[in-house]
Amino acid sequence: MTSPIIAVVGGGQLARMMAPAATELGLTLRVLVESPEAAAALPAHQTVVGLPADTDAIAQLLAEPRPMALTWEHEHIPPSVFAAAADAGVPARPGLEALLFAQDKIAMRERTAELGLPGPDWARATDLAAVAAFLEDHGGEAVLKTASGGYDGKGVRVITDASQAKDWIAGHAEGGPQVLIEQKVDFTRELAVLVARRPSGEVASWPVVESIQRDGVCSEVIAPAPALSTDLVRRAREIGETVATELGVVGVLAVELFEADGELIINELAMRPHNSGHWTMDGAVTSQFEQHLRAVADLPLGDTSPRAKWTVMANVLGGARTDLTTSLADVHDPAAKIHLYGKEVRPGRKVGHVNVSAPTREQAYDRAVAAAAIVREGAKQ
Amino acid sequence: MTSPIIAVVGGGQLARMMAPAATELGLTLRVLVESPEAAAALPAHQTVVGLPADTDAIAQLLAEPRPMALTWEHEHIPPSVFAAAADAGVPARPGLEALLFAQDKIAMRERTAELGLPGPDWARATDLAAVAAFLEDHGGEAVLKTASGGYDGKGVRVITDASQAKDWIAGHAEGGPQVLIEQKVDFTRELAVLVARRPSGEVASWPVVESIQRDGVCSEVIAPAPALSTDLVRRAREIGETVATELGVVGVLAVELFEADGELIINELAMRPHNSGHWTMDGAVTSQFEQHLRAVADLPLGDTSPRAKWTVMANVLGGARTDLTTSLADVHDPAAKIHLYGKEVRPGRKVGHVNVSAPTREQAYDRAVAAAAIVREGAKQ
Repeated sequence: MTSPIIAVVGGGQLARMMAPAATELGLTLRVLVESPEAAAALPAHQTVVGLPADTDAIAQLLAEPRPMALTWEHEHIPPSVFAAAADAGVPARPGLEALLFAQDKIAMRERTAELGLPGPDWARATDLAAVAAFLEDHGGEAVLKTASGGYDGKGVRVITDASQAKDWIAGHAEGGPQVLIEQKVDFTRELAVLVARRPSGEVASWPVVESIQRDGVCSEVIAPAPALSTDLVRRAREIGETVATELGVVGVLAVELFEADGELIINELAMRPHNSGHWTMDGAVTSQFEQHLRAVADLPLGDTSPRAKWTVMANVLGGARTDLTTSLADVHDPAAKIHLYGKEVRPGRKVGHVNVSAPTREQAYDRAVAAAAIVREGAKQ
Repeated sequence: MTSPIIAVVGGGQLARMMAPAATELGLTLRVLVESPEAAAALPAHQTVVGLPADTDAIAQLLAEPRPMALTWEHEHIPPSVFAAAADAGVPARPGLEALLFAQDKIAMRERTAELGLPGPDWARATDLAAVAAFLEDHGGEAVLKTASGGYDGKGVRVITDASQAKDWIAGHAEGGPQVLIEQKVDFTRELAVLVARRPSGEVASWPVVESIQRDGVCSEVIAPAPALSTDLVRRAREIGETVATELGVVGVLAVELFEADGELIINELAMRPHNSGHWTMDGAVTSQFEQHLRAVADLPLGDTSPRAKWTVMANVLGGARTDLTTSLADVHDPAAKIHLYGKEVRPGRKVGHVNVSAPTREQAYDRAVAAAAIVREGAKQ
């Protein structure tokens, strides 16, 4: 049987988790992996080994039989990939014009402000004087960010003195990313809204979630966000759908939000399946990975309803155990849905996650966290 | 990361659907496929091309790095496979002693009768006189079966005259399978119970389902079986768990049952994931494919609870469309969970299935059947 091919740039856990969904939909997933040991290499249906900047590798990724579309699982994609896809007549979804807003936080702040969407005060940190002035105006504390290249807390720094911006501003002068400074939002909690959009414009968003961060890394996600007013739920979905539509996103988009004083403020965008959506693999009728493929393949979007009252996702960060599949023998909670990424375990690295659905939030939370701890460390004797 | 390997004999849709579950559990699925075009070839993590009787292929399947266990997705496995696994120190799950009861309907009828489990009247059809006598004693109508080699209605025939047994009895004399004759049960409906068992003995069964057959092929499955008394539910699960335990099954076992006059009668056994359990992929906390791998890898079994009040599975049998992924564009029911097998479409061949969960049975049934028809034929203009 002829099976339509979807090409994916990037071989991490997000590409890995697209593979099961592609199998069920009868799609062939052809993945550009950084190495044969990449998380996506084993489950991908076809693999090309290489980096996104490697033109030969991209040519192989786009070779006959031609993919029906090209997508990506991280934002570090050079424009040459989009040019090659266009030359080959393969639509890139999302395209470069959308990706720019995920790659460049300055462009994102400018564009979302134009759309009237809520953001923190911010400014370009072109020099130390600009940083000092911004700090002066914002109570002596602010968040410094590189405009591109950051992830999981990297490229983000809370500062109280302009001198703390010196290295990044100097780095930009030497060809590094631009720097921006943002108001440090005094938020109650962090939320996220996940939206999918088809080329035709159809959009679908999942329930809004609360995301709990530790040391700048997502630790747990609670779906739905507890005690969020219907007004803020509507507002969050509206923000997500507006960003998806106005920025021309195709596929899954995550908008990370701060809740502060009963208002929502956009924190970050990710134009791909996202950690805040891993709960959907077991907790929603349609997972973010299936939905991303549906959107990229221009198929009708699936139902985003929850399957349970509460679902909690707990990340497994690298710990003492190196063979995580062995840990599974120690997880005796039958409701713990375990997802491993097949990655070498390193301290603090995201190597898997656990979803638990339950009738109460406390049960779902406690059981997900407990199971994730056992996967990470083994059972306590 | 070292990923434990599970070896699978057989490359059909059942092996194919194990691949997504293996990916999530961090297991490597190494599959013996009949050809590079087999349903499981694309999603399998590693493939060996060959038939079960090919000793070189089996040696490759068992080669270093050594699988932690070997399982199979159909019953047509020669004893040489089990001997090779034993020589290599790889446990076969289920083992040959269990498989015999799934391969040989005479052995199955004898063993289940010994266990006091309910079956139809039956006899060995050693010659035409035995067939005539059985017909005489059972109202002139009975079911003739080959003891082995049948599937999807093949190897099963309703007869009213001994002469209709002539070819199979002659076939046995020439080295074909033995033949048995069974009472034609005047059943109300067909049910199935699905059970998983670990080597340690832990068992878990899913809700009992109703299975609707057309022309000897499963057409739809309703989970749970509508209006089944709690007494019969308990009895069905008891039968399933007794068979699993007493026959030493490891992995998933399906027991097909007739409901007749308020009693249950064993129809068939399958010692592997089964069509009657495809609903679990979307309708239960743990799918039969994840559970099979958990059992075979000797991991704690997952929760078999339903995720919805009703889930209906409708098979997609080969029809007019040959490119089924194209059909997906026509399925606009967002709750239709579609599973394609990547098989060449031939009339009547099982090429996929659709699950729909809904608050009422009628909704789940009508929507699953409608979506399966669209996948098969495309949207009606």
